[in-house]
Amino acid sequence: MKRRIFAQAAAATLSATFLIAVEAQNTGATPQKHHKIVIQVSDADPAKWNLALNNAKNLQDDVGAANVDVEIVAYGPGIGMLKLESATGSRIADTMKANVKVIACENTMRGQKLSKDDMLPAISYVPAGVTEIMKKQGEGWAYLRP
Amino acid sequence: MKRRIFAQAAAATLSATFLIAVEAQNTGATPQKHHKIVIQVSDADPAKWNLALNNAKNLQDDVGAANVDVEIVAYGPGIGMLKLESATGSRIADTMKANVKVIACENTMRGQKLSKDDMLPAISYVPAGVTEIMKKQGEGWAYLRP
Amino acid sequence: MKRRIFAQAAAATLSATFLIAVEAQNTGATPQKHHKIVIQVSDADPAKWNLALNNAKNLQDDVGAANVDVEIVAYGPGIGMLKLESATGSRIADTMKANVKVIACENTMRGQKLSKDDMLPAISYVPAGVTEIMKKQGEGWAYLRP
Repeated sequence: MKRRIFAQAAAATLSATFLIAVEAQNTGATPQKHHKIVIQVSDADPAKWNLALNNAKNLQDDVGAANVDVEIVAYGPGIGMLKLESATGSRIADTMKANVKVIACENTMRGQKLSKDDMLPAISYVPAGVTEIMKKQGEGWAYLRP
Repeated sequence: MKRRIFAQAAAATLSATFLIAVEAQNTGATPQKHHKIVIQVSDADPAKWNLALNNAKNLQDDVGAANVDVEIVAYGPGIGMLKLESATGSRIADTMKANVKVIACENTMRGQKLSKDDMLPAISYVPAGVTEIMKKQGEGWAYLRP
Repeated sequence: MKRRIFAQAAAATLSATFLIAVEAQNTGATPQKHHKIVIQVSDADPAKWNLALNNAKNLQDDVGAANVDVEIVAYGPGIGMLKLESATGSRIADTMKANVKVIACENTMRGQKLSKDDMLPAISYVPAGVTEIMKKQGEGWAYLRP
């Protein structure tokens, strides 16, 4: 009886050990990697806004839209990109149709007395753009600051 | 006697295995995450200096100052932020009181013939700002370039 | 006979367990870390190009050229850094001699109707600069945007 318990314990341990070994290997390079990237827009410069939108599109074109999550976060002087009168309004609509998430910083909006009525339709919001950018990196997202 | 040894070996192995399993799980998302972020200042532009200081404050306000380590590294054209005559001198003192570490690059100081007497009191120093920024990322810190 | 099998199983499990424990420890901070950093150039500004080249050199000087892989990726408005007539042409040749990899974005080149004949000799190319920057971060490289 005791011997059977030892055998079961040893077997359970071995299988648990192998599972962990396999898990450990999976944390390395995987063959078909899914990418994630957060793009920061913090300049009051429409050329930078267009560059950020180009970057999002090029990433999707290059690795395949299904293989990369792209998120654009506008904050500080960059918030103008997401205002109703933004010079890049129609491009942003196209970008969102292509499954890029476009996010405005509510902290910045409060500072500039902007309400959601002042912003482009269908965009997303976070309480603080910088926190969003920090958290995404903590979750393994790459960071791009055009 | 031998049986007891087997039992002990199996028990030791099982407990070691479980410890590793728990450790492995801890490398994933943890419930109360402590954040770390290094903020780069490399522009000779007081608007950028203020933005960096705003970003540090907003991060602390948003996730709680106790839950985030913030470090500001000024180098290259950004070193002016930390000079005695900096337009943001008093704000930097407040920022350091709020436990944000503020660091000047000694490489840049040497290049611009600046000594510590030319710099704001109580700031920190590193031999090379870019190395500090690189190392922090290697240790899991997020990166922000306002 | 059975007892010997148990003993072998337990021994194998223990040694596997210890191997995993050692592996797990190795994923933490290692004593002599080899650093990797990708530097982005996306501004049409020779001062930024010089800053990027200074940063690459300072990193090598500070941690030892053998201890850090440095890659400079120029894309978008930054592509001018790598054109034949670049104001930083001779410095870029020196930088490549010092084993820094210098890479141009072919996406940008296509957009600006540039061929490899228009570019500095001996530089490297990638289909999309932003993808390169994203992938490197996914492989553990630090990111610097001067």
